[in-house]
Amino acid sequence: MEMLMRIGLIGTGTIGGGVVEIIESKASQYREKLNVNLELACICAKSDEEVAPYKAKGYTTTTDAMQMIADPSIDVIIELAGGYEMPRKWILAALENKKHVVTANKAMIAKYGHEIFPLAEKNGCHVLFEAAVGGGIPIIRSIQEGFVGSEVEHLSCIINGTCNYILSRMGESGLSFESALQEAQENGFAERNPTFDIEGIDSAHKTAILASLCSGKYVDFEKIHVTGVSKITAEDILNAKELGYKIKLLGIYGRGADGSVDARVHPCLVPQDHLLASVDGVLNAVYLQCDNLGQTLQTGAGAGRLPTASAVVADLVSLARSTDVGSRKPLPMGWFTKENPATLIPVDETYSRYYLRFTTKDSCGVLASITGIFSQNNISIESIIQKDVKDPGKVSIVVVSERCKESKILAALEAIDSLSSIAEKSQMIRFLK
Amino acid sequence: MEMLMRIGLIGTGTIGGGVVEIIESKASQYREKLNVNLELACICAKSDEEVAPYKAKGYTTTTDAMQMIADPSIDVIIELAGGYEMPRKWILAALENKKHVVTANKAMIAKYGHEIFPLAEKNGCHVLFEAAVGGGIPIIRSIQEGFVGSEVEHLSCIINGTCNYILSRMGESGLSFESALQEAQENGFAERNPTFDIEGIDSAHKTAILASLCSGKYVDFEKIHVTGVSKITAEDILNAKELGYKIKLLGIYGRGADGSVDARVHPCLVPQDHLLASVDGVLNAVYLQCDNLGQTLQTGAGAGRLPTASAVVADLVSLARSTDVGSRKPLPMGWFTKENPATLIPVDETYSRYYLRFTTKDSCGVLASITGIFSQNNISIESIIQKDVKDPGKVSIVVVSERCKESKILAALEAIDSLSSIAEKSQMIRFLK
Repeated sequence: MEMLMRIGLIGTGTIGGGVVEIIESKASQYREKLNVNLELACICAKSDEEVAPYKAKGYTTTTDAMQMIADPSIDVIIELAGGYEMPRKWILAALENKKHVVTANKAMIAKYGHEIFPLAEKNGCHVLFEAAVGGGIPIIRSIQEGFVGSEVEHLSCIINGTCNYILSRMGESGLSFESALQEAQENGFAERNPTFDIEGIDSAHKTAILASLCSGKYVDFEKIHVTGVSKITAEDILNAKELGYKIKLLGIYGRGADGSVDARVHPCLVPQDHLLASVDGVLNAVYLQCDNLGQTLQTGAGAGRLPTASAVVADLVSLARSTDVGSRKPLPMGWFTKENPATLIPVDETYSRYYLRFTTKDSCGVLASITGIFSQNNISIESIIQKDVKDPGKVSIVVVSERCKESKILAALEAIDSLSSIAEKSQMIRFLK
Repeated sequence: MEMLMRIGLIGTGTIGGGVVEIIESKASQYREKLNVNLELACICAKSDEEVAPYKAKGYTTTTDAMQMIADPSIDVIIELAGGYEMPRKWILAALENKKHVVTANKAMIAKYGHEIFPLAEKNGCHVLFEAAVGGGIPIIRSIQEGFVGSEVEHLSCIINGTCNYILSRMGESGLSFESALQEAQENGFAERNPTFDIEGIDSAHKTAILASLCSGKYVDFEKIHVTGVSKITAEDILNAKELGYKIKLLGIYGRGADGSVDARVHPCLVPQDHLLASVDGVLNAVYLQCDNLGQTLQTGAGAGRLPTASAVVADLVSLARSTDVGSRKPLPMGWFTKENPATLIPVDETYSRYYLRFTTKDSCGVLASITGIFSQNNISIESIIQKDVKDPGKVSIVVVSERCKESKILAALEAIDSLSSIAEKSQMIRFLK
């Protein structure tokens, strides 16, 4: 028996258009091989102009999403419009109408998932969001199903292609951050206003979602520590290289001793022989350390029209296979609520090795002052490198600390930055390990 | 409503023991978080001695697998016994009794899948085998579900930890094949009789399964080209390194122009910046190039008690979530039959660049003879390196050919090996690209 799924699509932009393209090209294959019939019952966009090309091809179209959502003949709503408020309204309305939902909207999941998932569970609906994190990498499915025989102890991920492209280009060609960003913009890998990506907000949305799935507790993305990549210099990249590391913007999840959660987003020095180090350019990757499984990595295209659309379509096929024959129950996600919050470990209570770069006026005694402050704060130093003068009258000193509590490093940094022999605000980057 | 799944387990060896351990440790979590109740209803092994520890813990045990399979109260049979013939018999009997099956037995799937899958489809049963390929890497699930919005055009995979360990150690420490194998055996990464692994048979089983899933046609593992790693020398590894490559044993699937299938297992020179190149030691990895998704890689533990057991348990959880509430239909696998065979591209009709190493008596004119034969066969040469004399009176010549048809290379090799100035059978290794 064929499983018919009548789909209402909201959004005909890059991803929405890709979804229509893939369904058109693969629909007969799904019917033939999987007994799944994906029918695009209605396509909705903001304006008549946007839906016109689809209308011309014979699709039923509308500009009234709420009307489409109220249509009892539609089984599932795909939300690919972007933004927060309207998608929230549509998805909640779809769930009220007992429709399943597929979305790629990480920002909306991070912000309103706590309203969406409990309602979905109450009404027995699936909300699938594979495309929201890591584009074409099936990481949501892997964590929820493939890795369910194991517990995630640590996760680190490269989940913003813009930042990874910029850092990779800085590493390959010695570009400054500004030049690499400009190149990324010229190649379509960065938005004209890149703040959301380069300051780590996008990574924070995705990290909050992954940390929630790994911990089974609600991780509020507004409460996790976020540092972006805009302060990383060509000099830092080069120093890291000399030390045997690459700098990557990572989303990190760690399981604390007592069920607490370590979730953060910041640049990290990643050892050159680590699996994440070879993930360059716009590629995304998720690395996990699990109790039974050991270490695993999944990498692939993190964005782009067809990879993301392909993840949306995979969710549709899963849904069709789950709901026709008497319904496979949705994964219980009712725990994703503010009433079940994760206890986050404050970042200054986390432990790491630290890369510290001080820009000093070339004055005698500054090295002694710096090492003195480390000593007063009980921080052991692994290595110190005094670098060539870059500007007349300035010297760079790079210190690698041994593993210690971040609060100690922050105290030392504050003391060092108040020295009169320090010329610029000092740089601090954490090591992955 | 809780989904109760009553399990009959056959096999209490390494993996079977791991499955019991994981179910014991996670059962309450599955009940609480997923409403899934995995109940080990009966444990079966060959002898009273083997089941005794489980009996002592209060489990129902038996040494009669067929009796357990006939028990109508059991929903699913886990087959972890190893071997071919008995598992085949048990699984077919389980399916006749409309029981679902979970197995990690790649050899049996490769050999008897064509009997098992059609029967499963006929009887509406699931046969899940995530643990059969890549251990803890959820690659079966990814190909069948996560990547269903895309088509696999090319797959290359490192799916035998023994071979990858040996080749990695040869590369890191310049060990000979024999020393690296011995080290692998001492560390428990190679069997006492390692033929099955080092000659590529295990990789061929797994590659046949993956190639079948990617193509939707039955790929007979006995018909795919297989070369193992036992002829790889320390010199080859070193030469590859100088050229910028690592040597890896790969399983390869390619989609031919007319629906034909390129499936083979052999050592390959992999560029050092390729995602597969950083997968060292006993790690496994599967690299895919897909039409919509682009390139993706999944890596993780390919073997071992808990990673493999964890994949088995993930299948059990999927099954429990699928079968209780009126049953999610099994994925149609009825096409996996000898009546739906893939048309395999013969290996001598495939194209590649080739690494060729000739051991010559140090006689004048041999280089001219070799290049002459390449020229007669219309093969362009990319580079020639004459290496230092290794044995008195012998010289190594390394030739890298341009991309050409394998039959041309084989003809040239045959002609060259019959030259009187050639001292040993020549080496040929394909490039991944």
